[in-house]
Amino acid sequence: MPKNEIQNLALRRALFFPSAEIYAEKIAGFFDFGPIGARIRRKIIEVWRKKLVEKENFHEIHGAQILPEKVFIASGHLANFNDPVIQCKKCHSIFRADQLIQETIKIVVPESISTNELDALIKKHKINCLKCNSNDFTETKQFNMMLALDIGATGKQKAFLRPETCQNIFLNFKRIYALEQKLPLGIAQAGSSFRNEIAPRNTLLRERELGQMEIEIFFNPKKINEIEENKWNEVKDYKLRMLLLKEGLTEKSCDELVKKKIVSGKLIAYYLARLQQLYEAFGIPVEKMRFRELEEEARAFYAKETFDFEVETDLGFIELVACNYRTDHDLKGHSKESSVDLSVIEDKEKFIPHVFELSAGIDRTFYVVLDNSFRKEKRGSEERIYLNLPITLSPFDAAVFPLVKKDGLKEKALEVFEFLSSYGFSLIFEENASIGRRYARIDEIGVKYAITIDYDTLKDETITLRERNSMQQKRIKIKELPEFLWLLLNEKKDF
Amino acid sequence: MPKNEIQNLALRRALFFPSAEIYAEKIAGFFDFGPIGARIRRKIIEVWRKKLVEKENFHEIHGAQILPEKVFIASGHLANFNDPVIQCKKCHSIFRADQLIQETIKIVVPESISTNELDALIKKHKINCLKCNSNDFTETKQFNMMLALDIGATGKQKAFLRPETCQNIFLNFKRIYALEQKLPLGIAQAGSSFRNEIAPRNTLLRERELGQMEIEIFFNPKKINEIEENKWNEVKDYKLRMLLLKEGLTEKSCDELVKKKIVSGKLIAYYLARLQQLYEAFGIPVEKMRFRELEEEARAFYAKETFDFEVETDLGFIELVACNYRTDHDLKGHSKESSVDLSVIEDKEKFIPHVFELSAGIDRTFYVVLDNSFRKEKRGSEERIYLNLPITLSPFDAAVFPLVKKDGLKEKALEVFEFLSSYGFSLIFEENASIGRRYARIDEIGVKYAITIDYDTLKDETITLRERNSMQQKRIKIKELPEFLWLLLNEKKDF
Repeated sequence: MPKNEIQNLALRRALFFPSAEIYAEKIAGFFDFGPIGARIRRKIIEVWRKKLVEKENFHEIHGAQILPEKVFIASGHLANFNDPVIQCKKCHSIFRADQLIQETIKIVVPESISTNELDALIKKHKINCLKCNSNDFTETKQFNMMLALDIGATGKQKAFLRPETCQNIFLNFKRIYALEQKLPLGIAQAGSSFRNEIAPRNTLLRERELGQMEIEIFFNPKKINEIEENKWNEVKDYKLRMLLLKEGLTEKSCDELVKKKIVSGKLIAYYLARLQQLYEAFGIPVEKMRFRELEEEARAFYAKETFDFEVETDLGFIELVACNYRTDHDLKGHSKESSVDLSVIEDKEKFIPHVFELSAGIDRTFYVVLDNSFRKEKRGSEERIYLNLPITLSPFDAAVFPLVKKDGLKEKALEVFEFLSSYGFSLIFEENASIGRRYARIDEIGVKYAITIDYDTLKDETITLRERNSMQQKRIKIKELPEFLWLLLNEKKDF
Repeated sequence: MPKNEIQNLALRRALFFPSAEIYAEKIAGFFDFGPIGARIRRKIIEVWRKKLVEKENFHEIHGAQILPEKVFIASGHLANFNDPVIQCKKCHSIFRADQLIQETIKIVVPESISTNELDALIKKHKINCLKCNSNDFTETKQFNMMLALDIGATGKQKAFLRPETCQNIFLNFKRIYALEQKLPLGIAQAGSSFRNEIAPRNTLLRERELGQMEIEIFFNPKKINEIEENKWNEVKDYKLRMLLLKEGLTEKSCDELVKKKIVSGKLIAYYLARLQQLYEAFGIPVEKMRFRELEEEARAFYAKETFDFEVETDLGFIELVACNYRTDHDLKGHSKESSVDLSVIEDKEKFIPHVFELSAGIDRTFYVVLDNSFRKEKRGSEERIYLNLPITLSPFDAAVFPLVKKDGLKEKALEVFEFLSSYGFSLIFEENASIGRRYARIDEIGVKYAITIDYDTLKDETITLRERNSMQQKRIKIKELPEFLWLLLNEKKDF
């Protein structure tokens, strides 16, 4: 849906909004999620946990967000996590040099371009300041995006907010590996990362505090093609939508990806497939997805092989997940700087494990899920807006309404609410406005099932269960409702 | 259990450990949670959400952790969120002056004591440096515990990491209130806060990055005694364990608390009761709890009335939840600094809502839950260690084992695992070592139910279900297992 429709819905229902918005001094790139938005966002993490992390027996950790300086010397972030910045000498506006060029003359600027080359491009194409139209810029400088902190009463302990959640994972590798001592080992984490973006924009798509759900898979590089046969059989004919440097857009089975050496091995193809399946579970149609192969200059400084998983929206293709083959870059760096040996021994051979990473953006995924699920339909003279969310992302398991607020129906609805709550269901109770208006309100936030208590309920202990998309209704006995709902929610029963 | 037992268990099973521990430069006061620890920690938040936030129809938000400077001018944190610091002139060690006095001469130093009074106490009692024994200290200075950041390419936007999660709640009050426009309104948030503690210690009990789950209840101060009758009836005879300034330790019903004016009104008594019930659900016996009334000098700078909810452990009473009557302090401050009117209109009267807060520490609760659930029993010559966690805090719904790893039992176990997973259960699969050893491993991390696949399973499709505490076993048909487990987990069935 168009960006302004997302923003209208987001503000109308407080899904997300600028942080500290009551202050003129609010800082761009920070967002808060209201009650319904926070629920949908949490469900996204839960589905990732259930359908990818737990299904693949990965280990999920929860780490500190502040880490000492040495960690980022080791990881390379202090030297390399930079964006090129220029400033207009006249009005002092600041721009990301690559973005300014890209947007003004519509060319793609590679990630690894030098500051001299950027200056040359700006001169050559006579690019002007977007604010005051001057063409008198400072020279391009590298600007480090890490956010620094001084810890302790003397302020002598220099630290940084993590720019990616995975650094905790690398630091904890030794301890988690010690638990079972086998590879491949997947370690996951969901949480915030922090980047001092020069130009945050498009709400959740470029934030300074961003949600990430990251998975690092540690493996023996000699065994990149050794994967359990039953696992491989599950994906080998499954097709991925690839945007390849040589071939352009194409569909390839996992088996082809390996045989044609488009990926370095079966392990990588397998997890790309699992990732595409996760986003199918988020309700995104496969036709909108692609894995974009990145050329060397466009890859992050730590990556040997990168596929950006992108989904098409009204704003174009949005990168949701970076799939990076990080090799032994991180463990090697931390081994060196900490003087702690992070190698393992397998088949009598000592080596530093390699890492394949699935680094997903939570907030970007949230945005794209909204974009994709938004529906607007004419119903007679009215407009029906609903979010076609899969049941697993529904902010509530069901809504419970009294048909009218009299004759004991409200009390009966409360009783049903309490009864279902006691089975662990999460429910919403919209009791104001007409029944049609209440359906409209829950449709708009993607609640899939609604339970209505009416006069018949008082006579025969049955309720009406309504399904959001089809608007079909069923009559069900209250005492059978918990099991019925439980089976629906686990997709064990069709409505 | 003794502190060293917690640390042993924590390290043995990677429940929690110092962040960036492989580096000599690791910073005190930061902890990471390993796979099992992160699960139990998450369950604590989920139980808080289910049994308190959702049950009371509070709205949970998810806000940015970095907020602009103005927010903390308004909240008073920049002026008042200080700890008194002194430095030894000889060895340059830094101490919290109040703690140094408290620990050296065993007296209670009130929170509001002045720096001059602290200097006088140090002189009077001839207190020496704990490191080098010198008594030559600098004068006590107020040290602000906020962690500062510069945001943006020019670094001109001064910001701070939030020292409490509730500041997002106050900033979002207007927007969330607009959704339903009624008081009382509860807004909740779980997440990290950051405090530049001078002396972090006791692992999770005094951290620099700390988990908080906070609830702010906004209400009309004239209606502090107006609470729905059915709600009040549920708690009015429920007894709270109070440590009162005048009476010492005593049990009081909610009704007595109000009638004897120990609390400002029914609303406060009601939520204190709900809080005590939450900690009962965490498995803490009521006899170990108390609400400690704080005298004026000991309260936080924003609080008119404070009860610290404390639980007894081997380290003494630990404060887990601060229950603060913050009056209109926060909304008034933000109204003034932002020039946005945060008052509401009720009964034709315009006023700024008052706030009652339940501010719980996630990591402290985690520590105390471990401490309380730890059991060590002799079984013949062996020692049996288990965590007596309530099922709602069990890191997994159940464990699934093959009796032995041969004759197809392993494959059958995998099949049962997949079958149960498809119903949304979270499971663990311990397949190495003897069956006794495997029980020991899951007992130690508090998993309540174990499912064993044996030779009979292959014949009649039944499994053995074992309960952790009683070690009782039951034979159950696989196809009946999902519903059986689901009812057990929701406490709808006894084992």
